[in-house]
Amino acid sequence: MISLQDVNPRVRAIRVSAQTALQSLSALQKDMAQEAQKPFKEVIDVGSGDSHRTGIKPISFIRQVLAVCLYPQLLEDDSLPLDVRLRAQRLLQACDGESVGSYTASSGLLHVRQNIADFITKRDAGVPSDSNDVFISAGAQRALMVVVKLLSRGEGQTQTGVLTPLPCPHTLPALLDEAGVTAVPYQLTEEQGWAVDLNKLHRVLQSSRGRCEPRAIYISNPGNPTGHVQDRKSIQEVIQLAAAERLLLLVDEVYQDSVYGLNREFISYKKILFEMDKEFRDTVELVSFHSLSCASVGECGLRAGYMEVINMDPEVKHFVDTMLCTDISTPVTGQLALDLMLNPPKRGDPSYDTYTQETRFARATLSLNAQRALEVLNNLPGMSCQSAMGGIYLYPRLHLPAKIRMQAKVQGVEADVLYCQKLLEEEGLLVGVGQQGGEAGPHHLRLCVLVPPDMLEKVMFRLCSFHLRLMNGHRDVDRSLTGEDEKENTEHVFNCGEGKSLSSSGDLMEAI
Amino acid sequence: MISLQDVNPRVRAIRVSAQTALQSLSALQKDMAQEAQKPFKEVIDVGSGDSHRTGIKPISFIRQVLAVCLYPQLLEDDSLPLDVRLRAQRLLQACDGESVGSYTASSGLLHVRQNIADFITKRDAGVPSDSNDVFISAGAQRALMVVVKLLSRGEGQTQTGVLTPLPCPHTLPALLDEAGVTAVPYQLTEEQGWAVDLNKLHRVLQSSRGRCEPRAIYISNPGNPTGHVQDRKSIQEVIQLAAAERLLLLVDEVYQDSVYGLNREFISYKKILFEMDKEFRDTVELVSFHSLSCASVGECGLRAGYMEVINMDPEVKHFVDTMLCTDISTPVTGQLALDLMLNPPKRGDPSYDTYTQETRFARATLSLNAQRALEVLNNLPGMSCQSAMGGIYLYPRLHLPAKIRMQAKVQGVEADVLYCQKLLEEEGLLVGVGQQGGEAGPHHLRLCVLVPPDMLEKVMFRLCSFHLRLMNGHRDVDRSLTGEDEKENTEHVFNCGEGKSLSSSGDLMEAI
Repeated sequence: MISLQDVNPRVRAIRVSAQTALQSLSALQKDMAQEAQKPFKEVIDVGSGDSHRTGIKPISFIRQVLAVCLYPQLLEDDSLPLDVRLRAQRLLQACDGESVGSYTASSGLLHVRQNIADFITKRDAGVPSDSNDVFISAGAQRALMVVVKLLSRGEGQTQTGVLTPLPCPHTLPALLDEAGVTAVPYQLTEEQGWAVDLNKLHRVLQSSRGRCEPRAIYISNPGNPTGHVQDRKSIQEVIQLAAAERLLLLVDEVYQDSVYGLNREFISYKKILFEMDKEFRDTVELVSFHSLSCASVGECGLRAGYMEVINMDPEVKHFVDTMLCTDISTPVTGQLALDLMLNPPKRGDPSYDTYTQETRFARATLSLNAQRALEVLNNLPGMSCQSAMGGIYLYPRLHLPAKIRMQAKVQGVEADVLYCQKLLEEEGLLVGVGQQGGEAGPHHLRLCVLVPPDMLEKVMFRLCSFHLRLMNGHRDVDRSLTGEDEKENTEHVFNCGEGKSLSSSGDLMEAI
Repeated sequence: MISLQDVNPRVRAIRVSAQTALQSLSALQKDMAQEAQKPFKEVIDVGSGDSHRTGIKPISFIRQVLAVCLYPQLLEDDSLPLDVRLRAQRLLQACDGESVGSYTASSGLLHVRQNIADFITKRDAGVPSDSNDVFISAGAQRALMVVVKLLSRGEGQTQTGVLTPLPCPHTLPALLDEAGVTAVPYQLTEEQGWAVDLNKLHRVLQSSRGRCEPRAIYISNPGNPTGHVQDRKSIQEVIQLAAAERLLLLVDEVYQDSVYGLNREFISYKKILFEMDKEFRDTVELVSFHSLSCASVGECGLRAGYMEVINMDPEVKHFVDTMLCTDISTPVTGQLALDLMLNPPKRGDPSYDTYTQETRFARATLSLNAQRALEVLNNLPGMSCQSAMGGIYLYPRLHLPAKIRMQAKVQGVEADVLYCQKLLEEEGLLVGVGQQGGEAGPHHLRLCVLVPPDMLEKVMFRLCSFHLRLMNGHRDVDRSLTGEDEKENTEHVFNCGEGKSLSSSGDLMEAI
């Protein structure tokens, strides 16, 4: 029998995130809630960044076209808009045998790659994009894995290093472990809304040499989970650093569709690179990732994303294709959905109005929810949150009382993990655990705020109730026994500031 | 800039199969055919084992349910069968947020895993299957990669070795390269219909020790691309060998639904293992793979498969989950389709008759096509083919004239690859290249015979025309100038034996 010590040491070294354990606990809580062993009827999950899970609706146009592609008899169904049927017909023609059941080239359907390139060109005000530089994959995570594996080599001091922000997307550390590269964390500056501090980045880079061979910088913009959106100057500085230090730029731009901060807009790294001098735009190697799991579409379950690869040696780029080959093919429904996401109905098309309404509603929900949640969180004692400008998360900081930190120590668990466990067990609310943890902290929570407005109210209520109980002397209060004092306290925090509850879509439509 | 020598040496070592180059050439031929620069109007691809590509129709029940799951408004559509809508409703309930757009647990939806376990239990006449041993992934290939990576360790003499059949599925060598394990090929016995020769397997295993550390046997049953189906005794022998040598069994049982050989049936390795003595059934580690891309369903593009893991140390099995976590989630439409494939309509359900007719038609097509193709191939000079008992391929042997082998040598290309290139360029037919190649051979072709019957006639006609031209003095004949002699010759071979052309579905229905 294969024993534990026979297992690939690289696989054994994968750091399983605390979130995984929480998810298992969450399944248990769900069962208990169903069996009425819990005061809550359902578990709400705002840790995973999956908006459909909490009730955000899919975009009708995307789902209608995919339904027709799967069951082409629906081409005859007059109750479906004409542009839906025409688009489905066009997409089916792009599939071999006109079936979504056929394999595609490993880097994706040519038709879709071309439409992605057209989208990028338009997004970047004419900076050209070549479909040969676009690679479709089963999610942005998969694309990232391909590039990171390409760079991976050496052991110990010669092992490839990748600079990673702290905090970073919670799935990143495990990916880097599996690929066999060293993560070199650079701290983002919380008090400046999680901005990139170039000096810090530079110092971390220099001090990493000798411990590993740094070969790439990973950056997430809009920031996951920070919500920070870089401005032009910050992006230029990072590009200059990458050029000077000959580092590959890995840019997670998955939330490019969800910038809502005042006077902020999304500007792609590529666009800025191509505005810079020739010495930069001809040499800096850049890979940009985008995904179907982004905010306005949120089709996490369909699994598709893409990367655009800039200035990479064609001999090296060849291996991107080789590695995608071992996946054989990317899910075709996901590929088609990418096409629909980036090439939506145009003004005058029958689906245009519904599409516009749905996407606007999603964006307004996101922005208003972020504002509302920020106010509530910042009114809680022992909690402080930077305001976000984009993305789908808030990342508040927890200032935990000594008592719970002590309790965590006794139980041999991180204090923030214990906080999340208790929140889940007592209130049926699953949030993401922050990334620094440890006894000293700082401790954080990750909250996806792209949820229906009435759901946000529930989330905030559960979080406040729990948090205030914890802060008020850290008693393990049975919820059914909660005293009036606490109720009042919760109400106070909850109705604070100007943030009116946006619990009906009527309110929201007004706000749009 | 990252240069070629910076690329991960393991990635650089991936052997790109000759098929990849042929596929690129195929795209070129398609374009030329469309621009009327070719005597053929379309390229036919029977190299990839993708039946929808050549026009085999999907199973309506699967596509209808998926369409409803994607666009739940169709639940109200009375024109869809009631069982379709009820099933869609049930599957949506199994998804978080009742949306296929939500992530699932990394090893798949519990509901689907349970239904897979129930299918396996029923298939194996009651041998119990536990849903905790079932892991869903984006295709069987992906599941295989997870297990192989788990086993991968060491370098040189201590590197993990996996015994692989020769011939094997054409995607396997690249997968093993990427995982960093040594492939140890064991030759199947062509003259015995590609049966496993246990003595050979044993000799290869012994001689591999010292070169690497063999830790697993990979086996494909029904055989890809051989079409061989192992009998009970052969399976028992392999299990005994695995037990004696403490090897993990990796069994590709993807084509379990497509055994058509006389007096042959599919028996799973697991069933046989559980009929053996306790010393075997409690200890032999076995992983069995199945896929949505199997014969009767053929949904290659949806990307889903699963593996069942037997007798694996729970501590080791834990890492299967960990590795699937880095994919985040398996495509949900694929997962649901797996459920539908393994749990089809029952007698009395509104969809039962259509479902039964469609799957029977696919199986009959496969069996009759295999018979028809076999006769044609074995009547060609310089070609011989073992009869197949299952799977979707024929794997004929080419006896190439010295002249083409010489030409290949001059051009610096394998003779069988040159054959396939010319076949593609001259006739627009893409077949799979065999796996041994080299100057000496033996040379083979891989042909997927799960194509519509009229398509098979075209495939055979193109292959015969080309092959006879090649054999008749190896002239590069312009097809428009083809002389009467050759035409007659082609007709002769083509109408040989008892094999009547099955070019209309009417003939086929009669044959069912």
